[in-house]
This record gives sequence, C-alpha cells and structure tokens, in this order.
Amino acid sequence: MKEQRKAIQAEIITVGSELLGSWRVETNSLLISRYLGDIGVVVARKTVVGDRTDDLEGAFLGALSRAKILILTGGLGPTRDDITREVVSEALQCPLHTNPKLVRQLEERFRRVGASMSKNNLSQTRVPEGAGIIPNTVGTAPGLYWKRESQLIFLLPGPPAELEPMMCGPVSSIIRRQVRTSRIPFRRLRIASDSESRVDSNIEDIYLSYPRIETTILSSNGIIELMFQWKSHPDSSTAQFELGELVRQVRERLGDAVFTQEEENLESVVGGLLRKMGKTLATAESCTGGYIGKMLTDLPGSSDYYQGGIISYSNNLKNRHLNVSQAALDQWGAVSEQVAYQMAEGVRSWSGADLGLSVTGIAGPSGGNTEKPVGLVFLGLSDSLQTWVRKLVLNGTREAIRLRASRMALDWVRRHLT
Amino acid sequence: MKEQRKAIQAEIITVGSELLGSWRVETNSLLISRYLGDIGVVVARKTVVGDRTDDLEGAFLGALSRAKILILTGGLGPTRDDITREVVSEALQCPLHTNPKLVRQLEERFRRVGASMSKNNLSQTRVPEGAGIIPNTVGTAPGLYWKRESQLIFLLPGPPAELEPMMCGPVSSIIRRQVRTSRIPFRRLRIASDSESRVDSNIEDIYLSYPRIETTILSSNGIIELMFQWKSHPDSSTAQFELGELVRQVRERLGDAVFTQEEENLESVVGGLLRKMGKTLATAESCTGGYIGKMLTDLPGSSDYYQGGIISYSNNLKNRHLNVSQAALDQWGAVSEQVAYQMAEGVRSWSGADLGLSVTGIAGPSGGNTEKPVGLVFLGLSDSLQTWVRKLVLNGTREAIRLRASRMALDWVRRHLT
Repeated sequence: MKEQRKAIQAEIITVGSELLGSWRVETNSLLISRYLGDIGVVVARKTVVGDRTDDLEGAFLGALSRAKILILTGGLGPTRDDITREVVSEALQCPLHTNPKLVRQLEERFRRVGASMSKNNLSQTRVPEGAGIIPNTVGTAPGLYWKRESQLIFLLPGPPAELEPMMCGPVSSIIRRQVRTSRIPFRRLRIASDSESRVDSNIEDIYLSYPRIETTILSSNGIIELMFQWKSHPDSSTAQFELGELVRQVRERLGDAVFTQEEENLESVVGGLLRKMGKTLATAESCTGGYIGKMLTDLPGSSDYYQGGIISYSNNLKNRHLNVSQAALDQWGAVSEQVAYQMAEGVRSWSGADLGLSVTGIAGPSGGNTEKPVGLVFLGLSDSLQTWVRKLVLNGTREAIRLRASRMALDWVRRHLT
Repeated sequence: MKEQRKAIQAEIITVGSELLGSWRVETNSLLISRYLGDIGVVVARKTVVGDRTDDLEGAFLGALSRAKILILTGGLGPTRDDITREVVSEALQCPLHTNPKLVRQLEERFRRVGASMSKNNLSQTRVPEGAGIIPNTVGTAPGLYWKRESQLIFLLPGPPAELEPMMCGPVSSIIRRQVRTSRIPFRRLRIASDSESRVDSNIEDIYLSYPRIETTILSSNGIIELMFQWKSHPDSSTAQFELGELVRQVRERLGDAVFTQEEENLESVVGGLLRKMGKTLATAESCTGGYIGKMLTDLPGSSDYYQGGIISYSNNLKNRHLNVSQAALDQWGAVSEQVAYQMAEGVRSWSGADLGLSVTGIAGPSGGNTEKPVGLVFLGLSDSLQTWVRKLVLNGTREAIRLRASRMALDWVRRHLT
C-alpha cells in the first residue's frame, strides 16, 4: 500500500474512555474510513483517547501537525464528560459563543417531543469562532468544522446514527470542495475459502507479473479479500486496463471460488441468486445453532427466499422432525455424513423449500476425539433431484469454527446455483 | 474516570494497514486491555497505524515519550509488510542479530509439521540487542520486550491466538515484576434494558451520595453496564466497604433487573440458570431468524439445556409446524400478540422442552406502518402451566432491533426462572 502516500491523508481521533476498556469495540472509524475511501481519502492513523483534557489535547495537536484532514468523533454530548468541543476550541484558540439559532432549534426540538430541556443541553449550542456548523438531523449535537489553509478539521458526534448522515452528506461535500481528491484505481475480489496461503500460492505468479499493482490479501474467518491497487499516478489511463487484465486472469484461475467483485457480502450474493432464480431455501442447523439463519436474515427482504428452518441442537429433534433415522444416529453419530444427508433432505420436505441445507459438526472446545476432532463439520445440500454431502475440517476457536462452517455452507449454496 | 491517573498508564499501538480500512475491526486492543486491567494497568491511548516505516516510527516515538508501558501488536510476521521489529529496533538504536537458538527452534518446528521453511521466516529469529524473548507457543514469531528505566516496551504478534497466551502469562508477569501495580477497587453490575437514561435517573440519587466513587454507565444494544470505581488511594480499607454499600443499594433499587455482578454475559447467566434448574428451552424465531439460537449456542455445553427450535421466517412454517392458526395470521397478522402466544406454545409442544420462547416483530428498515411500526416486537414465553406475551417497541437499525429483541427475550427467560 506504499503508494497510497499520493492520496490525501486523514487521521481519525475517537474520544471516549469507554473505548479504552475491554468491553466496547470502536466501529465509528470503520464508518468514517468507508466514506473517506469513497472520495479517495486514505486514513493514515486512528487514535482512541479517553475523556481527559490533556490526553485529548495531546492527540489532537499531534494529528494537527500531520494530517490534511482530521476527523474527531465523540464527546460532543451535553454532560461534563463531553469535552471535545471545549478542548479543540481551546487548542485552536477559538473562543466559544452561544449560537442563538441553534438555541432556538434545540428548544423547538424539545418542545416537539414534549420533553423539558436541561441546562446542560445548552453547551451543544456553543460554536467556536471560525467554525462552520453541520446540522444534526437525528440528535442534538451539531457537527463543527474548520477550514484552515489546506487543512480540514471536523468534530462529529459519537452515536453512529448521528455520525453517518453527516459523513455521507455534508462532510464528504466539504472535503471534495476543499481538496482535489481522486480515487485510487483499484479492484477487489472476495472468495469464500479457509486457506489464505492456498489462494495466495495459486495466484502469486499472476499478480507478481503486474509490478505496478499492489496486491493485498486479507483473510477473516473463511472470507478472503483480494485487493488490487494501482501504485502510481491515479489518473493513468493504463491503470484501468492493467487492473482489468489482472482481475480477468485471477478470476479465470480461481473459477467460481470468487463470489463477488463488489462490496457485497456472501449472504447478499446468495440471497440475490436465490431471488433471481425464484428458489427458496430452508436450513437445518446443529453445531451452528441458528448462525446461518441469523446471517441470511440480517438482510431485509430475505423472507423472499429464506423460509426458515430447524435448529436441531438435540438428537431428539433431528430424529423426530428431520426424519434422521435412529439407526444413523446410533451407528454413525450425530456428526456424520449420513446424518448431514438426512438432515438436508429432512428440512427440505419439512419446509417445502426448493433447497435444504444442513450443518452438523463439532465446534469445540471439547467434545472432539482422534476419530472426530474439534472442527470436523459435515454439510448437506438437497434439491428436488439429489442430495450431496461435504466434509470440512476447520481450525480455530468455537466462534471461528461456527462462523466458517456457516459461510462454507452458504458458499456451497452459491456454487450450487451458479 | 479522572482518578485513574493514579494507575499505571499504558498505550497500545496496533500495526496493520488492513485495520485502517472499513472492513476489519481491531480487537487485539480489547484483549490487551482486559489483561492489563486484571493487573491494575489502565490504557490511556490506542493507536492504529499502517505498515509504513514513517508512520509507525512516529507513532512509536510519540508513545515512548508518554507511556510507562507500551505494547505494540502486529507486524512481526515473515513478509516484507512486517516492519515492526525493524522499525522499533532502529528507533531504539538496538541492532538486530540472528539468534541461533530461535533458528534451531524454528527449523525444528517446520520439520515437525513436515513443511519446508522459507528464507523469509529467518527474519523472525532476529533479536534486537538488549531485548528479551517471549516464546510463541502457537506460531512462529516470538514476542520481544525491553526493560528501560521505569518503562516497558513489548512487541507482540498480531494473531489473537498467538497474542493471548503471551498476554495472560509472560507479559503480565514481566509487568508485575517491574512496576508496583495495584488493582483499583471496583464493582460492576449488568442489566438487560433498553433505556440507559431510565436506569440512570432511577439510581442517580444513590451514586451521587458516594462522591469517592466514580460511576460510569455504558450501554450497548440492550445491555447496560454500571461500573463503580474507587477514586482515591487504591489500598484504602474504606473502598471495599463503600463499594459494597453502593452496590447493595443499587441492587435493591433495581431488583431483578441486574443479571450479573461478574464478567458474564446474558447468555451464560440464562444457560447457568437453566442447567441449575434442570430445565430445557426451545425457541421459535421469526424476525430474529436464529439470532437467539446462535447466542445460546455460542456457549459450549449449551446442548444440556437448549434443545433447538424453529426459525419460522415464513407464515407457512408458523402455521404448519408451530400450530399458529390461519385465523390468527389472517386477523392479527404475523406480528401480533396472538401469534407470539401461539408460537411459544407451539414450539414447546413441538420440541418437548420445558420452556418455549418466541419472537415475532418488524426489524425494518421497511415493512412498518403507523399501526405496526418498525421496532414493534412481541415475545412469547410458555411453560407447562401458562403462556405469557410481552410487547416491545425498540429503536435503532435492523441489526440493533434484532439484537435487542434477542436479548430482551433471553432476559425474560432469566427473570422467569428467578
């Protein structure tokens, strides 16, 4: 990624003591990165600091000395903990003044919902000298920004529901007006596979023959993302051609392993295919315990193609409702080809769906043995003509095994449909 | 949290360009925070930088000028992207030397798994002058550390499976040997509830009467954590007494809303109760689509009390297998008290479990109307004696509504059992 130096550099500072503990994942910076990426701005550093004046001031001044675009999120609320507005204004030597228009808007807002406004809320109507206001369409804290010679500073609220409308609209526009950004040409491919190194060695000779393209391979629990990024001047006309060629060759080599060239996830690719082909799916999940159903129904509109299914965590339910024979359970055990086969057929006829998908396995950490180790998973897939079974041996924690098994199962549906 | 100043301060730097994009969540720092918290060390700042020499060097030197304990994670691998070892050694002016013992161990390791060692791997056997080695029991990159006057620097591998054994064992011991840490007395309470402000105003008078205790309220999709932390000298004998009193009063006020005083999550509290009482549970999920099943089966051993259930995403399955009457579906619609009631009863008899739990609702973003808005959810709970229904109106995104509904449902089971 070395050549991204040529892109505009941004830094993100997230403010909140709760984000320094072990409990809360910081995700605002992902959202900000996404919108910045869309307009060709690259994040060079992310910092998380607590709600303490010295720490925030130090982090802010450091970033101010480096970044062209500086985005702070969090700490704009009405309580004493919320210090971002004050600390940054002080550091930039811009005194705060109450903005009468913001006061009226806030009073109006509280009147509308029939709540009384506490005095604290007035702190959110204070605007530093020289700062512009970004309206908050969802909450009470407006965003603030400064344009300085070739530098932009944004203070944005912490709640994602308030942050996102600001990022996608006003913040992007302000940045595009101020700095000439141009998106670095790139292509992306996503693959559902459990082995990063196998994918890498399979395509290494191809991408190494494109020295002007930087290839990055990211892997996360069964999803591998190949990222091809043009290294030199963004506007080069060769960029699109070379990227296109590289992607064509890699796709040819990898065949149907590639599930998307877009920003899509696997669930939505599978959902899109099912919808397009007018097919319905039902699931019978044992070791994944509902994970596949959860993933499929993460998407709105999934009821068009996903009927539901059975979480058959007990053998009793497998036998009684999925028609898994007691003989198969006794002879081969719940984690076996035979049971996966019968589960897939069983859930198809139970639901009336076109496709039945099943998973049974040992997610661990205990319950494995030498014959059937932790990570052993069988998948079953049944349509009106035939039923198939696949065996997987997966690595990782219980969570990783369950997530990978769910994704491998969905990917199998995808490959079956294409 | 202002008084945490008195605790030992640490900074975490995570190295990896992929963590600056919009795709990958950085979680190593949570793991590190947790182990540091256990020995009374507080994280003051977290930084993420890409795999670039200048950026990493800048971030490192900044942290070096501030923190007593400095932990870097990532960038110790064998590829050209992995620059942490080199950059930090250079910044500290400690030349790297190949360590013959590490070479032998690495060769041995490759021999054992029958793989050939690439030349790249040898970079992982290079140790900076003055640095100690932390053995890697899982992967190939050893951890490194420096003891400087009253300062500790650690370089640890990025993969969590390699990082965690180092954090929980050697790193904690090295820190405890070097600096006198003492854990700040604190207590924690967790509540399943959708309203942070309601909880806050309910207990405000109690915690405000304890000025020597800092109270923090964190909220995350239906789970609220109350954190009570002693402000002054850690070894004060009054600390335990006052904290105990405060917690007692808050618990008294909140009643059975508190689900734990430990580090436990809701699923494990519910699971523990079911196991203790010898009861089994089955679920019928509509809008949550398997989320509750997934959460319950995140825990190993959940088959002791969770039988499984039906994901009834289509009305057809509700009617055919959960015995939800066509009349109820026609007259009241799938998202109604009546259907939640019948689903809970239906899944209990379908499964033979002691308790049947059901969820039906509108997760959005579309599908709502004025009568039945997005966020409207009905829960049903059925035991051998009776069936109950609850109505929820939840805020947030589709993901937030589904997660909150799942947690509210599990919390209801908990309250029912206690």
